[in-house]
Amino acid sequence: MEEKKSSSHETAGKPIRCRAAISRVAGEPLVIEEIFVAPPMPREVRIRIICTSLCHSDVTFWKMKDFPGVFPRILGHEAIGIVESVGEGVDEVTEGDTVIPIFLPDCRECADCKSKKSNLCSKLPFKVSPFMPRHDQTTRFIDLNGHPIYHFLSVSSFSEYTVVDIAHLTKVDPTIPPNRACLLSCGISTGVGAAWRSADVEAGSTVAIFGLGSIGLAVAEGARLCGATRIIGVDVNPDKFEVGKKFGVTDFVNGANSGDKSVSQVINEMTGGGADYCFECVGRASLVQEAYACCRKGWGKTVVLGVDKPGSQVTLSATDVLHSGKTLQGSLFGGLKPKSDIPVLLKRYTDKELELDKFVTHEIGFDDINKAFDLLLEGCCLRCVIWMDK
Amino acid sequence: MEEKKSSSHETAGKPIRCRAAISRVAGEPLVIEEIFVAPPMPREVRIRIICTSLCHSDVTFWKMKDFPGVFPRILGHEAIGIVESVGEGVDEVTEGDTVIPIFLPDCRECADCKSKKSNLCSKLPFKVSPFMPRHDQTTRFIDLNGHPIYHFLSVSSFSEYTVVDIAHLTKVDPTIPPNRACLLSCGISTGVGAAWRSADVEAGSTVAIFGLGSIGLAVAEGARLCGATRIIGVDVNPDKFEVGKKFGVTDFVNGANSGDKSVSQVINEMTGGGADYCFECVGRASLVQEAYACCRKGWGKTVVLGVDKPGSQVTLSATDVLHSGKTLQGSLFGGLKPKSDIPVLLKRYTDKELELDKFVTHEIGFDDINKAFDLLLEGCCLRCVIWMDK
Ligand SMILES: [Zn+2]
Ligand SMILES: [Zn+2]
Ligand SMILES: [Zn+2]
Ligand SMILES: [Zn+2]
Repeated sequence: MEEKKSSSHETAGKPIRCRAAISRVAGEPLVIEEIFVAPPMPREVRIRIICTSLCHSDVTFWKMKDFPGVFPRILGHEAIGIVESVGEGVDEVTEGDTVIPIFLPDCRECADCKSKKSNLCSKLPFKVSPFMPRHDQTTRFIDLNGHPIYHFLSVSSFSEYTVVDIAHLTKVDPTIPPNRACLLSCGISTGVGAAWRSADVEAGSTVAIFGLGSIGLAVAEGARLCGATRIIGVDVNPDKFEVGKKFGVTDFVNGANSGDKSVSQVINEMTGGGADYCFECVGRASLVQEAYACCRKGWGKTVVLGVDKPGSQVTLSATDVLHSGKTLQGSLFGGLKPKSDIPVLLKRYTDKELELDKFVTHEIGFDDINKAFDLLLEGCCLRCVIWMDK
Repeated sequence: MEEKKSSSHETAGKPIRCRAAISRVAGEPLVIEEIFVAPPMPREVRIRIICTSLCHSDVTFWKMKDFPGVFPRILGHEAIGIVESVGEGVDEVTEGDTVIPIFLPDCRECADCKSKKSNLCSKLPFKVSPFMPRHDQTTRFIDLNGHPIYHFLSVSSFSEYTVVDIAHLTKVDPTIPPNRACLLSCGISTGVGAAWRSADVEAGSTVAIFGLGSIGLAVAEGARLCGATRIIGVDVNPDKFEVGKKFGVTDFVNGANSGDKSVSQVINEMTGGGADYCFECVGRASLVQEAYACCRKGWGKTVVLGVDKPGSQVTLSATDVLHSGKTLQGSLFGGLKPKSDIPVLLKRYTDKELELDKFVTHEIGFDDINKAFDLLLEGCCLRCVIWMDK
């Protein structure tokens, strides 16, 4: 594929004209148009996307009529690409390097990025902004009429070229198939990381996962890798159990039909006192409470991965908190530190431990990108890889 | 003192007539009366109390008119004593051993007691019962009219003799001064343990403590032992700062007068983003939320030690939980495992690391026991040791 593209010597420092799928109106199909992608500013990198995949957050913001939903915007944040050119002050990557963009920054300079305990950069704090992170209020995309197009999650991968801050890029082994590596850009890492880094699941333990979408299944995959012996999936769709089995799910609780008992009661009974680790992947505060109610007193951890509506509140009994010894913990990007942990996960993929293949249920060409939205909304798709060159 | 007492050969197997301070009416002075203490049932131990100290929970239940406040009752749960005789099946201690009774059971048999991760026994789960833990609905105390007297927290140390389940006893080094060792029976262990075991405070870190009563000061002592470099005390009484300095408190925030800012805002500003560990020692759900709000994003832990009223709720924003990466954790008895951790703390006392002396502000004789209540209520007392023989 590489040879078809113009070399960086011809393009560096100049705007690149290329194709992008633009979200112009909330909830309406993306429109593939030609746009101009500006050269990278200091600490930025312009990359050519090889392939990208669709994550639920893309769909959420595609549908979102009001701020932080903004239009026109280039969505997409799970991807892999090749460095086309770098801005001033970038020495971490160079032209031709293979990189994964990640919505969560890792500046390598602040107290958080230097600490092993945090993955929440304080220099360029994560926010859902329509602009570039380090050069406020600016975008690198304009349409052919000269109007700016907004960014998404500091990535905007639904474009042949995009500009990404170096804090949002991780250099990866170029020999890994791009339609596998790109999955580690967001959702699958979030789930696997939640089990591996946030919860640090112990071998032999019992795990309960609320919500068996891609993230929940990735938690199962992570728990399986950590040696969990019992993985209980909870979902309102009983078909998810069959899917879940491929990811190590051993037991299933139907959240829509648990009889006269709550899901937490069912799990407390199944496990004789609760799961060692509970993961809330749906994004509903009431399920966080259910998860907390069925994690094991004494040592249970409840990890929150799901994004609820702003203003939602988690309410726990003060006595329960005190007397249960349980832990409640939030997990953004699975607690992973992008630049150090993603290469470890890719190594575990090449070592045939982490199984990424089973997450890819569909692959399509860029021109068919709206099909990816249909597939995800229909619920039968885990990850649809969109190839830019096909 | 030992020789004044009858030897166990004369008393074992028979009721012992001795003096006890009985709480007959809620909130009214204890009455010292003669009672009969029955011999220990299987897995129980009868002990002679050397000294006991007054903890806030004694005062709470002394004032409590309705269930679980019951009368007549023998209060007291911080103590040290000598084994007088043992019931069937007790091989862990023998006549003459020095022991500390602890309200939290440690049966050494259940999954929790065998696990390093839990201190919440599941075989004899902690509850505030007026009876013996293993022999339901029975007491070992009767008054001279033959009426039963209730137990408190499985200890009831305001009596010359008491019966305690073996799960609630820890054998200790008899050479340690009893008026120091008895402090580890409840409050001081709870605070020190919260910093040491529950939070596992790292050297060099910043700690915020809500409430500078005995427990909060014990958290400071524990944090100091762990090498915390900044210990921020929060209290509505500014006099507590002077007291706190002796326990390693380096900074003070007046909870009653923090200007137009909330306490959490003040602490976030003082620390440039929050304390590494926050401890709620007051027992107010709203303060748990304040503590959570000023613990450091990325790695901050909020540890709940305070007992709030039943029904109180801790409410956290779901988005904050997810995006902050913070941990919320309950801590009963400081996360300590009685039989293994108390001897370690006592060793640290004899090694002159853990400073227990400064917690003892008053010492009185058993006949003056009601003075201990007055002193604690006046607020100038940390621990008042009550000697049974003086
Ligand atoms: Zn950073
Ligand atoms: Zn995503
Ligand atoms: Zn036990
Ligand atoms: Zn106590």
